[in-house]
Amino acid sequence: MTQSIQRPSGRTADQLRDVRITRHYTKHAEGSVLVEFGDTKVLCTASVSESVPPFLRDKGQGWLTAEYGMLPRATHTRSDREAARGKQTGRTQEIQRLIGRAMRAVFDLELLGARTINLDCDVLQADGGTRTASITGAFVAAHDAVTKLLATGRIERSPITDYVAAISVGVYEGVPVLDLDYAEDSECDTDMNVVMTGSGGMVEVQGTAEGAPFSRNELNALLDLAQGGIATLIEKQKAALEITHG
Amino acid sequence: MTQSIQRPSGRTADQLRDVRITRHYTKHAEGSVLVEFGDTKVLCTASVSESVPPFLRDKGQGWLTAEYGMLPRATHTRSDREAARGKQTGRTQEIQRLIGRAMRAVFDLELLGARTINLDCDVLQADGGTRTASITGAFVAAHDAVTKLLATGRIERSPITDYVAAISVGVYEGVPVLDLDYAEDSECDTDMNVVMTGSGGMVEVQGTAEGAPFSRNELNALLDLAQGGIATLIEKQKAALEITHG
Amino acid sequence: MTQSIQRPSGRTADQLRDVRITRHYTKHAEGSVLVEFGDTKVLCTASVSESVPPFLRDKGQGWLTAEYGMLPRATHTRSDREAARGKQTGRTQEIQRLIGRAMRAVFDLELLGARTINLDCDVLQADGGTRTASITGAFVAAHDAVTKLLATGRIERSPITDYVAAISVGVYEGVPVLDLDYAEDSECDTDMNVVMTGSGGMVEVQGTAEGAPFSRNELNALLDLAQGGIATLIEKQKAALEITHG
Amino acid sequence: MTQSIQRPSGRTADQLRDVRITRHYTKHAEGSVLVEFGDTKVLCTASVSESVPPFLRDKGQGWLTAEYGMLPRATHTRSDREAARGKQTGRTQEIQRLIGRAMRAVFDLELLGARTINLDCDVLQADGGTRTASITGAFVAAHDAVTKLLATGRIERSPITDYVAAISVGVYEGVPVLDLDYAEDSECDTDMNVVMTGSGGMVEVQGTAEGAPFSRNELNALLDLAQGGIATLIEKQKAALEITHG
Amino acid sequence: MTQSIQRPSGRTADQLRDVRITRHYTKHAEGSVLVEFGDTKVLCTASVSESVPPFLRDKGQGWLTAEYGMLPRATHTRSDREAARGKQTGRTQEIQRLIGRAMRAVFDLELLGARTINLDCDVLQADGGTRTASITGAFVAAHDAVTKLLATGRIERSPITDYVAAISVGVYEGVPVLDLDYAEDSECDTDMNVVMTGSGGMVEVQGTAEGAPFSRNELNALLDLAQGGIATLIEKQKAALEITHG
Amino acid sequence: MTQSIQRPSGRTADQLRDVRITRHYTKHAEGSVLVEFGDTKVLCTASVSESVPPFLRDKGQGWLTAEYGMLPRATHTRSDREAARGKQTGRTQEIQRLIGRAMRAVFDLELLGARTINLDCDVLQADGGTRTASITGAFVAAHDAVTKLLATGRIERSPITDYVAAISVGVYEGVPVLDLDYAEDSECDTDMNVVMTGSGGMVEVQGTAEGAPFSRNELNALLDLAQGGIATLIEKQKAALEITHG
Repeated sequence: MTQSIQRPSGRTADQLRDVRITRHYTKHAEGSVLVEFGDTKVLCTASVSESVPPFLRDKGQGWLTAEYGMLPRATHTRSDREAARGKQTGRTQEIQRLIGRAMRAVFDLELLGARTINLDCDVLQADGGTRTASITGAFVAAHDAVTKLLATGRIERSPITDYVAAISVGVYEGVPVLDLDYAEDSECDTDMNVVMTGSGGMVEVQGTAEGAPFSRNELNALLDLAQGGIATLIEKQKAALEITHG
Repeated sequence: MTQSIQRPSGRTADQLRDVRITRHYTKHAEGSVLVEFGDTKVLCTASVSESVPPFLRDKGQGWLTAEYGMLPRATHTRSDREAARGKQTGRTQEIQRLIGRAMRAVFDLELLGARTINLDCDVLQADGGTRTASITGAFVAAHDAVTKLLATGRIERSPITDYVAAISVGVYEGVPVLDLDYAEDSECDTDMNVVMTGSGGMVEVQGTAEGAPFSRNELNALLDLAQGGIATLIEKQKAALEITHG
Repeated sequence: MTQSIQRPSGRTADQLRDVRITRHYTKHAEGSVLVEFGDTKVLCTASVSESVPPFLRDKGQGWLTAEYGMLPRATHTRSDREAARGKQTGRTQEIQRLIGRAMRAVFDLELLGARTINLDCDVLQADGGTRTASITGAFVAAHDAVTKLLATGRIERSPITDYVAAISVGVYEGVPVLDLDYAEDSECDTDMNVVMTGSGGMVEVQGTAEGAPFSRNELNALLDLAQGGIATLIEKQKAALEITHG
Repeated sequence: MTQSIQRPSGRTADQLRDVRITRHYTKHAEGSVLVEFGDTKVLCTASVSESVPPFLRDKGQGWLTAEYGMLPRATHTRSDREAARGKQTGRTQEIQRLIGRAMRAVFDLELLGARTINLDCDVLQADGGTRTASITGAFVAAHDAVTKLLATGRIERSPITDYVAAISVGVYEGVPVLDLDYAEDSECDTDMNVVMTGSGGMVEVQGTAEGAPFSRNELNALLDLAQGGIATLIEKQKAALEITHG
Repeated sequence: MTQSIQRPSGRTADQLRDVRITRHYTKHAEGSVLVEFGDTKVLCTASVSESVPPFLRDKGQGWLTAEYGMLPRATHTRSDREAARGKQTGRTQEIQRLIGRAMRAVFDLELLGARTINLDCDVLQADGGTRTASITGAFVAAHDAVTKLLATGRIERSPITDYVAAISVGVYEGVPVLDLDYAEDSECDTDMNVVMTGSGGMVEVQGTAEGAPFSRNELNALLDLAQGGIATLIEKQKAALEITHG
Repeated sequence: MTQSIQRPSGRTADQLRDVRITRHYTKHAEGSVLVEFGDTKVLCTASVSESVPPFLRDKGQGWLTAEYGMLPRATHTRSDREAARGKQTGRTQEIQRLIGRAMRAVFDLELLGARTINLDCDVLQADGGTRTASITGAFVAAHDAVTKLLATGRIERSPITDYVAAISVGVYEGVPVLDLDYAEDSECDTDMNVVMTGSGGMVEVQGTAEGAPFSRNELNALLDLAQGGIATLIEKQKAALEITHG
């Protein structure tokens, strides 16, 4: 898998950036995690509310949902503030829907009870991979929120059924590489985001040909890379949560 | 591939619905196609304008972009009219971004010149697979628009580099099946939309675990099904366009 | 009345375009009608919901309301999608208010009971007269919806008190003509839309001088034309509904 | 025409309310008129700007357009402020489109030159007939603005081709009556707004059956009433403008 | 305090403009006051509704809130209608929040009971000081509304605890002056709005350096001026309300 | 000034919270500062663009403007994301207008040249005083942006004319105190925000009586406290900027 290539960052093809997961980053939220994939920094908070959206009223289950935002100058050039423009872009909506689905894939919503966990993923600094960092960090924030619900007796059994993390992969100068940073992302022919669980099941595979279409072989090479990367990320989640044997 | 299963429609696992592509469905647009995947009916029009969006000004290239909508009563129960609500849902935005990317994957934007092709995909009746039908029909509408540009001498060489079509696949009652209708879609564990070109390259792979995560084996089975289905769809595009050997 | 004139379509001054009313055009709605006035094609659906708007709560009566839309490329040049712009134009709102009033004029809202019929009129192809075609088609869709309510025992007596249809008339090159198509509409000095019931009562008369003001004599000639045209339209509604003696 | 009837206001069937037209009501606008139809009070201002809307660019003509608003407590019960709700109602848009068309019917837009007159009609107190009072007052405000354009030499010949005014008529307790106030308006079976010029031409006729449909005879009686009322209103416009023989 | 200066209006430094307070200006509202500070004219209405905003539900208290608007041509050049733009400016929101706080400062919200008083302040003509005129007039309108609530027995004791009025002060050509008109306002280095009660307590002090920063001495001189002006305004409120000894 | 009082934080009446100013907090912006007033943490970025807003076109001067936001879970309970709601609250707009005015008070806009500095102040964690922390931090970020403009030769002389910082003061349990945290802010009778320059001039004084009105004596005591606090803050700005003698 480790084909010879010169990545802008000097990493090998299957090398993640430095990943740091800092819990309790802010003080008010039930879960608050700063997740860093290299220079990409996302603040993920989990907020618990004792209500559910209208479509779940009286269904005896809970809900997880996510919102995503980028500070205007998280990027190389300033982008418009969505609150000032008066609407969220299609990209923002796509990402927050993806994060929500990823979280719900590892939650038993009936065990959660009639309450909602709001995951807010706000990008403080962007350098590629903000959606995969968001998913990886949001899970840890949600886990902390669940720990509080258990500690205060509001729920008796954890609704969490597995770990979940995400990584991007892409074909850069003809070679499949793991965890694209901005320099690579803007040059890639193919860009794929993969979400997987701790037990190795796939939750989301979203591959897009930015330039030339990709082949089944490339797809397979990318998925192999992603599988390895996600396994490492889940180790880091466990370490952050101080869970010695998951 | 053809595992034993009772699909609600009585189709075999690898069987498409009846696909019909009707050109010149309305009279004003440069391309106007009614595409039907069984009971799913989408009107796709292609409109040419002699201008480009601001970010392409003076870049010497053109653009293709798509908008998607559903008539309020295209579905089992009436949904709110987006124009009356004052905004498009996240789902709508996701779909129209997907259609646009699929079209651009088979267009040489420099050959198109400084003009825009707007693809409008409006669902008259929905029964699952509206986004894949939209892509399949929008390509034919765009093709008709290009034919007019060539006929009137506005462009000299066709900017179309390949065919493109899309299909959904999913795991229904444990079995991978092709071209999900609504009855299947709402019961599937895994749901995947695949966009491919006439030469077999992949443009988009979007797989989502609605229930349990999916495995690499399932992913491979689904991609095999999709590949076959898309090859058939592209035959139907060629037949509709009266192209005997593509 | 039939003054000598050369209409762009070759019709005589008091001649309607070919009118076609196709019921059951889509499958989900309680009523679904494609109405065609020549090249003007509008899909009218009627959707029943078992609730009423807030201002009618606990008043023991029902409601009919209409929404109107035009597909972006129903017209000669593409117009912006209202859902993407984030609001409906004043023209759209005027038309949908007109359709709603016309429908309510022939419904006994107490007999309808505490439920709402939503009429959605979506223009697939426009060639003048979209609002009058919408009213004419929406009545048939509403009638079908009522038939279902009666058949399922949700109401016992029909709330429909009369037929209703609409037509445009105008002064084209000095001559009053019936059922303006786009070529005439854009050249008319005076443009009038008339809504009438099966028993010949007037529900709406909306006349506008586009160029020179009009006289009482012209007004009278236009109303005579409209009366004849609407009588014919109501015959076509009855034929479509297979009602032999209304 | 003067059938025996007891109107809430004690007026005869063909009697207008007291009409007052006060020019120079506020000091900044090129024309500023308070128009009162009994207790209905509307402030109409005319503002001249030396530009035209985009669709008229380089066409060598000007434009008149109108906006309409109601102060939140102009009415019996407070209505929401449209600026706070973030959009104008359909009713507001209908009225402002009507006012604009009425003004343009008596302006030669080429003589106006490449400039726009904005008419703002703001209802300070409502008691029925706000749209007809708006049209009647807006004409006087526009006339004052034209006088200023002539006085300062910005135009050489007046673009005004005729007077224009408007009145409502309706069938109240079976009797056609002129100039409906709120008490009558809310009880009328038929409600009609008529816009006419000084030379007696009709610009707009908008009749609506609120309850039972209306007949040709009723329509004719209403138009007769309106014709008389508008002639009186135009006398009052001339008096306010100090024009002794129009 | 009365330093030698030539104000554009010829007033002395500590001289208010002519202030007029006209009650019962329109007929529907529970309180309706036209307040004039020279050429600044604001219509202030008070509307009582028997409900409270959601955040006060079941708290056993009432609420006062204000909305502010300017007619498009209240100013030298026409400004966009906020209802047409679809949102209120930051300036509008600031002013209406200020008016609301000022009113609540002299109301005992528990004595008001579970009802809301909406104050609408609409500027008919602007010449500086619209927010201070609004506060001064809104209090009188609110007082009239309370008198009606007492007269009809809906409340037993007045919830009004004191008078409240407001004035602007500024440093014009180096000299502190009272009650800025537009000509002064646009030239001032420092601009301050002060809201005070009848017993001399301060409710709001909002001072802004438009050009050079201001000193404590200037601040003190401005507050002295404001104190005097507000005392006069409160005398005028009492006179308007026909209260001989407050 | 140091009256005996028990503040929730144990601070003396004239004691600031721990203030930390961290430059270069994120990497893309021309200036990026994390400012902390105790538990209040605001990320302030300065972004330079080589254009000016329309109202300054061809005026030969630059502009500074600010936007303010709060992450949804910066507070005790989650608040709605403004981008999702589709508009900014009145409070947000008030604060961002205040920050912009404060920055412009110490900039020579002609020396800045025809460019804009956007200050984005995003609250990561809120514990009272977010607007004063924003102003204090935004100045340092703007200073860093100016340093870059000078270093790259885009401007020759610094447009910065003075320092500027801000602090809140209030009357807590009858005693004037400096730098309110959330626990005090929600209990204060009077709440004042003061913006001052390095040379001691006042830029903004915004005092509000939340409960009982305040007296001139209280106002003076609060201003004395603010003056001292701001002097300290400006020392901290200088230290952060490594300026030894300002």
